[in-house]
Amino acid sequence: MPTISYRLKTINHQLSSSPPLNACLNYGILLIIMMKASALAHPNIAFIKYWGMIDEDRRLPANDSLSMNIGCLSTRTAVTLDPQLSEDVLVLNGEAVSGTAQKRVQAFMDHIRQQADNPAYTLVESTNNFPIGAGLASSASAFAALALAGSTAFGLNLSEKALSSLARFGSGSACRSIPGGFVEWHTDPETGESYASSIVHPDHWKLIDCIAILSDEHKPVGSEAGMKTAESSPLQQTRVLDAPRRLEACREAILQRDFAALADITELDSNLMHAVMMTSDPPLFYWHPQSLALMKAVRAWRAEGLNAAYTLDAGPNVHVICTQDSMGEILSRLRHFPAVIDVITGLPAGPARLLT
Amino acid sequence: MPTISYRLKTINHQLSSSPPLNACLNYGILLIIMMKASALAHPNIAFIKYWGMIDEDRRLPANDSLSMNIGCLSTRTAVTLDPQLSEDVLVLNGEAVSGTAQKRVQAFMDHIRQQADNPAYTLVESTNNFPIGAGLASSASAFAALALAGSTAFGLNLSEKALSSLARFGSGSACRSIPGGFVEWHTDPETGESYASSIVHPDHWKLIDCIAILSDEHKPVGSEAGMKTAESSPLQQTRVLDAPRRLEACREAILQRDFAALADITELDSNLMHAVMMTSDPPLFYWHPQSLALMKAVRAWRAEGLNAAYTLDAGPNVHVICTQDSMGEILSRLRHFPAVIDVITGLPAGPARLLT
Repeated sequence: MPTISYRLKTINHQLSSSPPLNACLNYGILLIIMMKASALAHPNIAFIKYWGMIDEDRRLPANDSLSMNIGCLSTRTAVTLDPQLSEDVLVLNGEAVSGTAQKRVQAFMDHIRQQADNPAYTLVESTNNFPIGAGLASSASAFAALALAGSTAFGLNLSEKALSSLARFGSGSACRSIPGGFVEWHTDPETGESYASSIVHPDHWKLIDCIAILSDEHKPVGSEAGMKTAESSPLQQTRVLDAPRRLEACREAILQRDFAALADITELDSNLMHAVMMTSDPPLFYWHPQSLALMKAVRAWRAEGLNAAYTLDAGPNVHVICTQDSMGEILSRLRHFPAVIDVITGLPAGPARLLT
Repeated sequence: MPTISYRLKTINHQLSSSPPLNACLNYGILLIIMMKASALAHPNIAFIKYWGMIDEDRRLPANDSLSMNIGCLSTRTAVTLDPQLSEDVLVLNGEAVSGTAQKRVQAFMDHIRQQADNPAYTLVESTNNFPIGAGLASSASAFAALALAGSTAFGLNLSEKALSSLARFGSGSACRSIPGGFVEWHTDPETGESYASSIVHPDHWKLIDCIAILSDEHKPVGSEAGMKTAESSPLQQTRVLDAPRRLEACREAILQRDFAALADITELDSNLMHAVMMTSDPPLFYWHPQSLALMKAVRAWRAEGLNAAYTLDAGPNVHVICTQDSMGEILSRLRHFPAVIDVITGLPAGPARLLT
């Protein structure tokens, strides 16, 4: 009879010093202690975008970035250690998933297994309350939730900094979904330290992200694959070199609650990222025709006096950032805009958190 | 009684040394010699775009450019000296035009008057066989035709090089509509010499420019005004610095009749210019939503095996460059494409020429 041997760790405690248990079937007793944790994280919308890496192995981004967590949208993920598994099992929105997505989760869990010094595979059950792969940063909330639930299930009790640093190995922007509110992702290229931290809490400025959904289809080229082509654009280096200036202007606009300044720098930064995308080899056009129509409309609405600014991630949907006093009118206009199939709204949200 | 005095010059001769004539009404004779010339020029479509100047006074472009004259489209312009006029009179497509357009023509004619040392004002009658101000390079053909007709009417007999150099003071890209076929516009920033010349004649490669007209409305920001903002884009310097590489690749593709290479570099260059436009302050979006839809479609058609490539000037219309063997299919698809209101086709065309 085989002997099942594994290390027991307790949830929410640092590396346990418990001795290995031998659950010996000879005694007719199978001792299975399920180690499980669940966490929730929000996606984030970047005002200063991350696009391109300077070091793929260490997952170091080409430029620092700045984002806001999006309330209302969330990923909930439960991780259960199961020593009987021979690979990680991924269940996404109730359906078992194999292929690239499973491999990506397993590669990420390997980081946690290594830190925990525990080889056990896991059951990962994840649900999103929004469409995935359509430029709504589903991988950000997914890997933030997975970093927290996974590390906790393995008994690691990581600091916010360590969690954020870990999360980026799943998806770069996931590190920004670990802290709450308005968040900056910094990297020290010398030390390789790279993690996100809050610059200000969610209540500082109750902006609303009104996400105009133009498509809930999976985009043809995912962000992770897309950004590997960033360096092939003649514009990427210029975008990166100018990023510190934009980031500072954006931070200042947020701290001062200066909507006009935020709008200008956010739209410029979005346009710069898409300029890089569409001049890469091969060129990437994430915009749909109606994305462009809506971007133009938002600028016209702002010229009318409404507080609205657009930004687009690697997808066709248009995030329209607005203030409370403009929200009613903006929502009404978005809902009547041609080709908009839905509008999702979210206030600045808190950090990734464990679910009890 | 007033004495009308003006200098007589003959058409097609260099600076005449004829003495001033005094047409004295005391003798009951009014001698009026109409000095008139007519010329035709084609617009051109740039594969490597001109956008931005390094010296506005001397009209020196930020980068060299490369284009093809477009047959079928043309401007015909007649210039008649009339010493009785107190300003230049512009008649465009049969209608007298005042305001900015007239001022622009008059400012250009001042260059000719200065060269001819003749202060006479003129009647300028110009007709286009295509919509103006919609990104079809109407100002290029207009000022090329005006340079030739105007200088001839004033008795100047300018070389192609001098004509091209002159035409750019009306509209930069007009200098490329003076020579025939495939044309490069070079500038020597040291000497200030800046003019276009043919790299190869029109018959070298019978490409077709199929222009999908999405709008024949006048664009909100003209090219001349738009490009004054080029330097405000963080991307302009990079676009300019990379231009010699693109120009060489484009020239090589044309000389070798290598469509795939031409398509790649032409689309990249178009995307780069529009990237600069949309990241300028204020940002300029010349694309319509359906321009973007058509750009994506053209790429998909090329992936199918058709020889088609897009390029857009400062306007929403999409120039689809194709080879003879693909033209039939491309035309059929363009005519059925949503929002396309017309398709105009043109083979590579010859130089600006005098009309007898």
